[in-house]
Amino acid sequence: MDISKRTTGINFTNNKMATINIWAPEAQNIEVQCGKFTISLHKDEFGNWIGFTDLIKAGDLYWLVIDGQKRIPDPASLSQPEGVHGPSCAIDLHYEWNDQNWKNPELKDYIFYELHTGTYTSQGDFQGIINKLDYLVELGITAIEIMPVAAFPGERNWGYDGVFPYAVQWSYGGAMGLQQLVDQCHQKGLAVVLDVVYNHLGPEGNYLTELGGYFTDKYKTPWGAAVNYDDRYSDGVRKFIIENVLMWFRDFHIDALRLDAVHAIKDFSAVHILQDIRKATDKLIKESGHVHYLIAESDLNDPRYITSLEENGLGMHAQWTDEFHHALRVSAGESKTGYYSDFTGVDHLAKAYKDAYVYTGTYSSERARKFGRGTTGHPGSQFVVFSQNHDQTGNRMLGSRSGTLYSYEMQKLLAGAVILSPFLPLLFMGEEYGEKNPFLYFVSHTDPGLVENVRSGRKQEFAAMHLEGEAPDPQDPATMQQSRLNWSALREKSHQTMFLFYQAIIALRKSHTQLCSDEKVLTRCIALKPLNCLLLERCATGSSEL
Amino acid sequence: MDISKRTTGINFTNNKMATINIWAPEAQNIEVQCGKFTISLHKDEFGNWIGFTDLIKAGDLYWLVIDGQKRIPDPASLSQPEGVHGPSCAIDLHYEWNDQNWKNPELKDYIFYELHTGTYTSQGDFQGIINKLDYLVELGITAIEIMPVAAFPGERNWGYDGVFPYAVQWSYGGAMGLQQLVDQCHQKGLAVVLDVVYNHLGPEGNYLTELGGYFTDKYKTPWGAAVNYDDRYSDGVRKFIIENVLMWFRDFHIDALRLDAVHAIKDFSAVHILQDIRKATDKLIKESGHVHYLIAESDLNDPRYITSLEENGLGMHAQWTDEFHHALRVSAGESKTGYYSDFTGVDHLAKAYKDAYVYTGTYSSERARKFGRGTTGHPGSQFVVFSQNHDQTGNRMLGSRSGTLYSYEMQKLLAGAVILSPFLPLLFMGEEYGEKNPFLYFVSHTDPGLVENVRSGRKQEFAAMHLEGEAPDPQDPATMQQSRLNWSALREKSHQTMFLFYQAIIALRKSHTQLCSDEKVLTRCIALKPLNCLLLERCATGSSEL
Repeated sequence: MDISKRTTGINFTNNKMATINIWAPEAQNIEVQCGKFTISLHKDEFGNWIGFTDLIKAGDLYWLVIDGQKRIPDPASLSQPEGVHGPSCAIDLHYEWNDQNWKNPELKDYIFYELHTGTYTSQGDFQGIINKLDYLVELGITAIEIMPVAAFPGERNWGYDGVFPYAVQWSYGGAMGLQQLVDQCHQKGLAVVLDVVYNHLGPEGNYLTELGGYFTDKYKTPWGAAVNYDDRYSDGVRKFIIENVLMWFRDFHIDALRLDAVHAIKDFSAVHILQDIRKATDKLIKESGHVHYLIAESDLNDPRYITSLEENGLGMHAQWTDEFHHALRVSAGESKTGYYSDFTGVDHLAKAYKDAYVYTGTYSSERARKFGRGTTGHPGSQFVVFSQNHDQTGNRMLGSRSGTLYSYEMQKLLAGAVILSPFLPLLFMGEEYGEKNPFLYFVSHTDPGLVENVRSGRKQEFAAMHLEGEAPDPQDPATMQQSRLNWSALREKSHQTMFLFYQAIIALRKSHTQLCSDEKVLTRCIALKPLNCLLLERCATGSSEL
Repeated sequence: MDISKRTTGINFTNNKMATINIWAPEAQNIEVQCGKFTISLHKDEFGNWIGFTDLIKAGDLYWLVIDGQKRIPDPASLSQPEGVHGPSCAIDLHYEWNDQNWKNPELKDYIFYELHTGTYTSQGDFQGIINKLDYLVELGITAIEIMPVAAFPGERNWGYDGVFPYAVQWSYGGAMGLQQLVDQCHQKGLAVVLDVVYNHLGPEGNYLTELGGYFTDKYKTPWGAAVNYDDRYSDGVRKFIIENVLMWFRDFHIDALRLDAVHAIKDFSAVHILQDIRKATDKLIKESGHVHYLIAESDLNDPRYITSLEENGLGMHAQWTDEFHHALRVSAGESKTGYYSDFTGVDHLAKAYKDAYVYTGTYSSERARKFGRGTTGHPGSQFVVFSQNHDQTGNRMLGSRSGTLYSYEMQKLLAGAVILSPFLPLLFMGEEYGEKNPFLYFVSHTDPGLVENVRSGRKQEFAAMHLEGEAPDPQDPATMQQSRLNWSALREKSHQTMFLFYQAIIALRKSHTQLCSDEKVLTRCIALKPLNCLLLERCATGSSEL
């Protein structure tokens, strides 16, 4: 694989010629229609439809024509200015970067700040985030983590319904908007983490199915047919995904990717797709001299995901750890329903401080089986922890954040528990000042049947949990509107104080060897169950206890 | 887990009390009905229905009664004297062994002889095999490998339709018959390998489905719902399987298990079931002082299956290697249809001598993707090779063996290619004298709908391959009858000579350090494609070339 440039889709050479490579192993014929021109392609033995032309220029709109009849946008498109059902736009990713002095920090120094572009500011785009960067630097976090930006239907979506893995959502500012944001972040000393979804595609506008080969019915996923990583034609799918990883690192200067729900990536190949992703990343790092990280979301409690390739691991640098969150929330008084039912409080939290996972081979009632494995030998910097995130907040019926769920003092305690842990702390946008607006689930699908399914599914979900009241309508624009941060809250004293507390505690972590150490083995934790109290002692090699 | 005795099903204590443990997590009530007695059981929190009684004696027939209504045999039964739909029989596995002097050889000294109990002799049972042991010792093989013996419907089956994993097929001689066979083998210096099926259960008589929890629809297998190794309640399934492994080793003195089609075992747990099986086996070995081996059939070309637990492997000691067979057969003139289409001849055979696998990351047209990974560091004794086996023979429409497919000289060449390889050679019963009878696919299902499905499926399969003639009827008793070895052939000179050739070449392997070495890295192999010829040089550390 050529790691120096994207080969999938339409790309431009230095002398402005367009190269075309559409992978469609089962198609009989593929043409590109661009304005009045129709460009024929020829198919190679691996199902790539190839062309080379001066008839397409950067900025041109185009369609793929399949088997002489069906006109669809290009699933490898870099831009969908008219939405997921409109024409694709051929663009040149070349950008004049100003971040030459940027150096990606060590992973152990990451303090993440997760944000959703559409609701972070009233602009709801990358420029809105740029306007907040000085504020974030002041707060002290070291990396922003952007929820998925792959083009999705309409203008309202968390991002997990993306259907064009290479196209940056137009309403957020498109590819160049993201490049500008990363460039600005780097100049201000912030790393950028991007959330990417390689386990499924969204339910509307997924034109990959028209090209054949991308999905397999060998496995079931909660979101329908699984992405085909190990069945017939999977080489093309794997290349499609690996080139996507490389594009974010190489052409967008993204510092780390957060790979959504890798437990839903089913791959029985002798080389797992995550191992191939790691190999390609290492190759790029070696050539470019710039470091990049791979962070997996996994609910399997299986440290093989974060074990090195040399040790037959899947090679992810780090992973999210939901169980720390669940143990922490139950310790803070969360009622033990749903996935919280497996968690007992401070004793489980003490376990999480020790092992990152709570379940390391013990019986889980919720899962009705023994679950997980220990993490001996894995440092704290391989685990991302949080007291809230988009999922844990947005999957509540009313999208309630900690700012409304917990007392003022409890919010501070939660912050301390996360930020002073031996793990990598992650904050969810707004928690640093105790945001009280909800973060709700919202979509803007255009398919009426789908809209109705999402609506009723959401209602049923919460009805099954016997919750009172009714779930807000995900399709209603007001639902997204309510989920925006209320920055004016920062004018109030109590919110200002919370911000200062977060700022202080982040500074504390950064300035004490014991607190920024990732030696979880040196963390001592004593749970005092009757008092619902936990003593945490942090230590680092060569330092005294704290 | 108690490795010292079986706890699943009905077992007897030293003072002849019966302990009952039926795992049925979803049942409302389970009773045991034995003669005029009905024994109530109580359920523990993990779904085990427990009882302790003097009302059941060894030899008694019994039924399980589910929810007060449905009467079924016990899926953990040790004996089904009246077939898969009849009552279970409680038996005591205690046996007076005479194999105290037996020591399981090193795996690298195994020379396997695969046989099917029902067709090996005219008796078609374990006693029939016992009568042939002197013959096998004379031949020089070191281990017999018995095709599956778990109770199946009727009296005619390869064994892969077994539905009582703990019950030895009654028509073969039941549990004690197998114990006697193993005892005799050990006294004559032969090891015993048993083929076991943990990836699916047969289509008729599978009463496990009545107890709930044993299967999951998360994954698809060619044989229907997958065995549940990682979904809700899977602890009980895993225990059921691990206790089965331990029973064969401990109570039947089996030396090695051949685990059928492990690629169809889908398990995303943090600890894979194969790893758990290896751990339990190691524990037993440590306690008993007797060595046992685990050999997987896998078509994934993934050396992780035979990598140690310490290196995050799945811990199998060795695996079958079909690709050696395919490359060898194509070199011998097999037409390149079906799964042979991926193989080119002596160059692929040379690759197989080097790597055991032919595909180690290269593109396979048949699979339409890149396939496999290299085996560097894995010795030849981790790979079982053959020029024919039950599958490669029986899956041909007419079940033709090498004895009818190849010339006399070619049969000898195939024998040499296998027996003088750096791998573990496996012969298929009868090949040592050039048996000409076919080995056909046969069943004796009692469900008429199923019989019709198997019949028509078989016909369609071969029609799709555009083969002339018609597939023999699997249900017809004559089909099994035709598949029996014709031992009278050994009275003929040509068959005698073939036997002597096999005997000589096995003796050659055993007597030359270079030939019994498993250092595949020291094997040199030169393919002379235009001559369809291959030069093989064997070597061992400290010895001269051969």
